[in-house]
Amino acid sequence: MRIQTVTVAGGGTLGSQIAYQTAYAGKHVTIYDINDEALTAAKNRLQRLDASYQGDMHATQADLDETHARIQVTSDPNTAFGNVDLVIEAIPEVTTIKTDFYHLISGIADARTIFASNSSTFLPSQFADQTDRPSQFANLHFANQIWKHNTAEIMGHPGTDPKVIATLTTFAHEISMVPIVVQKEQPGYVLNSLLTPFLENAAYLWGEDIATPQTVDKTWMIDGGAPMGPFATIDLVGLRTFFNITQERQGDNPAFKKTLAKVQQMIDDGNLGLESGHGFYTYPDPAYQQTDFLA
Amino acid sequence: MRIQTVTVAGGGTLGSQIAYQTAYAGKHVTIYDINDEALTAAKNRLQRLDASYQGDMHATQADLDETHARIQVTSDPNTAFGNVDLVIEAIPEVTTIKTDFYHLISGIADARTIFASNSSTFLPSQFADQTDRPSQFANLHFANQIWKHNTAEIMGHPGTDPKVIATLTTFAHEISMVPIVVQKEQPGYVLNSLLTPFLENAAYLWGEDIATPQTVDKTWMIDGGAPMGPFATIDLVGLRTFFNITQERQGDNPAFKKTLAKVQQMIDDGNLGLESGHGFYTYPDPAYQQTDFLA
Repeated sequence: MRIQTVTVAGGGTLGSQIAYQTAYAGKHVTIYDINDEALTAAKNRLQRLDASYQGDMHATQADLDETHARIQVTSDPNTAFGNVDLVIEAIPEVTTIKTDFYHLISGIADARTIFASNSSTFLPSQFADQTDRPSQFANLHFANQIWKHNTAEIMGHPGTDPKVIATLTTFAHEISMVPIVVQKEQPGYVLNSLLTPFLENAAYLWGEDIATPQTVDKTWMIDGGAPMGPFATIDLVGLRTFFNITQERQGDNPAFKKTLAKVQQMIDDGNLGLESGHGFYTYPDPAYQQTDFLA
Repeated sequence: MRIQTVTVAGGGTLGSQIAYQTAYAGKHVTIYDINDEALTAAKNRLQRLDASYQGDMHATQADLDETHARIQVTSDPNTAFGNVDLVIEAIPEVTTIKTDFYHLISGIADARTIFASNSSTFLPSQFADQTDRPSQFANLHFANQIWKHNTAEIMGHPGTDPKVIATLTTFAHEISMVPIVVQKEQPGYVLNSLLTPFLENAAYLWGEDIATPQTVDKTWMIDGGAPMGPFATIDLVGLRTFFNITQERQGDNPAFKKTLAKVQQMIDDGNLGLESGHGFYTYPDPAYQQTDFLA
């Protein structure tokens, strides 16, 4: 099967980016969300993405118009899920919400439909048996700013049909993603398996007063040739998200006590990273993007 | 004190790069090594560095000639250490060799001379008391390809005089390094504190058949904007060095058993990385440097 029609369930930050990118690549897309308010918010997100595609992808006005023309929105489950090749689930990371959702669409979807979850935190085996088609279920995970960070991590559970993985891999290529096939279930897929401990280790160097954030970032940028260091990345991720993940992983580890307290203090002071304009750097025009930063 | 004269002890790969960079920046440099054979090898290394400085740093023939004219070599300890502002020790990472060396130079060096160790693995507190001047002793650590990876990690022990740290910081700037001041003793300084677990985590994903090396590298390059991924970096570090470090850190960890066995197999097969022309990639022109790698 070749995927031509896609329903994205959930029109939040990632959901609207997935819908936009998929339609931009020529597929017909439906965004499903629970009510008109959520759908209006989704439509506003789609409008705001135009500027990014114009700036970063050199999209013409015709490209944008065609993209929007290929996207419809609905809060009617039968319209959304009754006759579609692929459902990409991008709803809240709450077990009961996802369970209810998979029960709902299992009663509606055509036998051919593949179900894929964009979940960052759940493994596909945790929901496969909540669907009526475990062999047609896998995770398909996108990164924020999908048009630039164009990886699609594809991860099945032990019961996923290899043909479904192949279909999702082809689909990823067709929507200009680089498919990242994760061959076994792995929390964090590839990217977060590397990034999460990397950011933690960097934060520890600052938390224990071993080196300043700027010193750490300079080191990584010079010796690794990277465009930004780990503290700039934490600003991008957001201090609150970084705190929650690190608390979950290292909350019981005494070695991280000082580090977590310092991150908490920054959050209490309103230094949330890029989103608040202040974090380890001040935005816009953070120091690490200045030409003299590595001098 | 401002550093004008420097003796680099040990004319190996790093020692000769440190000497060359220091002389290139205008300082007067002596390379000390144990016998004429070692000194001849050092001189050959210095000659071979010319091409890198011409290619990467746009050095003129006059720049190269002046650099070589500022470097002398000797195996006589009195000539090397009797009257110099700074000694940079870049000798083998063997406790007894370093201990003997610090005993030797303590009996020769002028009272003003600062001793600095380029050691990757030892902390300055491990040798400070083997010198006659613990307060004038710190680590000063350079990366391979010093002219491009121009960090100088500066790390004192608790007894190092802050003025010595300041002098070394100024010296680092003067020889076109970015000083990376490590404020407390930290094994691995900044760079290896981040890089070592990062490479380990990447190797684990391959060792456990979760993702291929090329998949992992693509992910890091796309989502982090880096010019190379962790497996390309392991090739550069060398599989043997990577194995030794990982064995030391994770040899007792059952989670790394398969990974270590797979690295060992690659070494047994002669796939040592860049140095042997084969590792996770084939050299020259490895796949990750091709334009279609991220397509």
